[in-house]
Amino acid sequence: MTSLQKYNVAIVGATGAVGEKLLETLDKKQFPINQLLLLSSKRSAGTEIEFQGKTYTVQEAKPESFEGIDIALFSAGGSVSKKLAPEAVKRGAVVIDNTSAYRMDPEVPLVVPEVNATDIQNHKGIIANPNCSTIQMVVALNALKEKYGLSRVVVSTYQAVSGAGNEAIDELREQSKAVLNGQDMECNILPVSGEKEHYPIAFNALPQIDVFQENGYTFEEMKMINETKKILHDETLKVAATCVRLPFFTSHAESVYVEVEEAGLSAADVKEILNSAPGIVLQDDPENQIYPTPLSAEGKSDVFVGRVRKDLDNDKGFHLWIVSDNLLKGAAWNSVQIAESTVQNNWLQK
Amino acid sequence: MTSLQKYNVAIVGATGAVGEKLLETLDKKQFPINQLLLLSSKRSAGTEIEFQGKTYTVQEAKPESFEGIDIALFSAGGSVSKKLAPEAVKRGAVVIDNTSAYRMDPEVPLVVPEVNATDIQNHKGIIANPNCSTIQMVVALNALKEKYGLSRVVVSTYQAVSGAGNEAIDELREQSKAVLNGQDMECNILPVSGEKEHYPIAFNALPQIDVFQENGYTFEEMKMINETKKILHDETLKVAATCVRLPFFTSHAESVYVEVEEAGLSAADVKEILNSAPGIVLQDDPENQIYPTPLSAEGKSDVFVGRVRKDLDNDKGFHLWIVSDNLLKGAAWNSVQIAESTVQNNWLQK
Repeated sequence: MTSLQKYNVAIVGATGAVGEKLLETLDKKQFPINQLLLLSSKRSAGTEIEFQGKTYTVQEAKPESFEGIDIALFSAGGSVSKKLAPEAVKRGAVVIDNTSAYRMDPEVPLVVPEVNATDIQNHKGIIANPNCSTIQMVVALNALKEKYGLSRVVVSTYQAVSGAGNEAIDELREQSKAVLNGQDMECNILPVSGEKEHYPIAFNALPQIDVFQENGYTFEEMKMINETKKILHDETLKVAATCVRLPFFTSHAESVYVEVEEAGLSAADVKEILNSAPGIVLQDDPENQIYPTPLSAEGKSDVFVGRVRKDLDNDKGFHLWIVSDNLLKGAAWNSVQIAESTVQNNWLQK
Repeated sequence: MTSLQKYNVAIVGATGAVGEKLLETLDKKQFPINQLLLLSSKRSAGTEIEFQGKTYTVQEAKPESFEGIDIALFSAGGSVSKKLAPEAVKRGAVVIDNTSAYRMDPEVPLVVPEVNATDIQNHKGIIANPNCSTIQMVVALNALKEKYGLSRVVVSTYQAVSGAGNEAIDELREQSKAVLNGQDMECNILPVSGEKEHYPIAFNALPQIDVFQENGYTFEEMKMINETKKILHDETLKVAATCVRLPFFTSHAESVYVEVEEAGLSAADVKEILNSAPGIVLQDDPENQIYPTPLSAEGKSDVFVGRVRKDLDNDKGFHLWIVSDNLLKGAAWNSVQIAESTVQNNWLQK
């Protein structure tokens, strides 16, 4: 980006899995930072972090921390956002919140910049960053919707442990070592930290991400369903989701069945639209075994799409395999994109 | 089973991943064996295997090996079945073939005993055992179809490496060790032994099982589509599949969206039917975090179903999570069930 102005930026949750990626991304994309403030819980305060050749000491996040801040990137859990985001807004900051705390609040724009950047201008201080598995899917869905219309989505996810934080990454590593050494596994974190039951993730698959709702769906599944409709501005869109945690560290993959409104399309038509859409890299060449995988997407900002096939029974049905780094496009990079849009369009608090 | 008669049984592919499980299953289910003959490729001939307290030397499979054999269980790859199954039939054996060689042959019954055991009686010497991922799915689908009718199936699979044989199991183990020790991975087997490109399976997901067909689907996906229609005797059933290999050793899991023909059903109705169907164990209690996983299904003969939910948009749509040990119900146990049905009903060659 080109801009002469520079901004005071705070990161809340600077020591977490997403916090680390936020710093990497701000640096890599050369976001114009004037002052940088790294905040965390009391427990992690005092940690020292290097950024662009300078050492920063992480401070405990408090209401008064946000004095003079232009942009506050929150990624420290929903309860921290609930408590401190309004305090940051009160002090003049725009909050870009990476938790689920405000996503479905009708007053809060829920933004994937390739899809609905202009929603940002309606913010009242808080802009929500969608759930990781939602973001990568809507980038592809929006491209199809704009060209062909969209009526139905059925997604099954293949999600990395890093979506559950650094403790889950450590748990996968430790459990994997134990299995390979013929030892017993310790299960303390997954599927959901704080839940009653914990199950092995190493060499296993857990069909639970986040807690169960009364309707039998998990909260993660309901996030995908509700957030997709909000971002695409289409309450009538039919969306169904099954979310599964798997033993890999980074990147979520998704097997997505879509029904478009236009008849008579070919897989080639769909590939062409995806290939020319912003933020998408098409990796789809079966003859040469080219398709995206979690490992191949790791560390990259794009959404990768492959395995595009027309349904064999439904003329309007197509199948896609969508992969993206859940900590980058699914979190840090999408948040920084929102920050970029906000400053480029002068949508900061007046 | 109760039977006074005993049978001469040959196992072709006795040293493979499925061969080992065939022996375990014949023992566990007390199949009435008179003579047991263990056969393999020339390369593995000479291997000694213990069975019920006796040591057997594996012999090279040849046409004349099958003299006097009543039942020959084949699991040594399609080309071996193509070559030797007709030789076994010629010599009076019933062949139960666990490869894809004869599955779509209109002369050959394709059998999951809970679903279509009576198809066995039409055999002309060969009975085909379906693909592992197909078997566990149709056990659940058939229960729904019989009670409510069935019009549409969309499945995304989560498949264990053991489906690709012992070499793939070793590859996952070695690659996992390398990653945890910070070393480079060697990739020689997966996604498909003999294909041009090999990719890491450790801490990754590969959206390719078996080779690609001209229509962009993999052969594994087409097996699920075509075999499901044949087993359920319904060429009009709409079936779509996306098959994905994952880094766990045993059991396939499947996220399945189905549309039934009857309107107004609840998830409780569907659970009740599944719970009372043969071969199915319902594990579905979200409040207590009860659902099947690949690890919890390992070593068991049943098909486990959980996460049963009604679709939020389609009154006739339901979502299921189906898990089963791919080497047992997906292979060895289903083959032994076919053998049991065959002898109990006097459907051997006359």
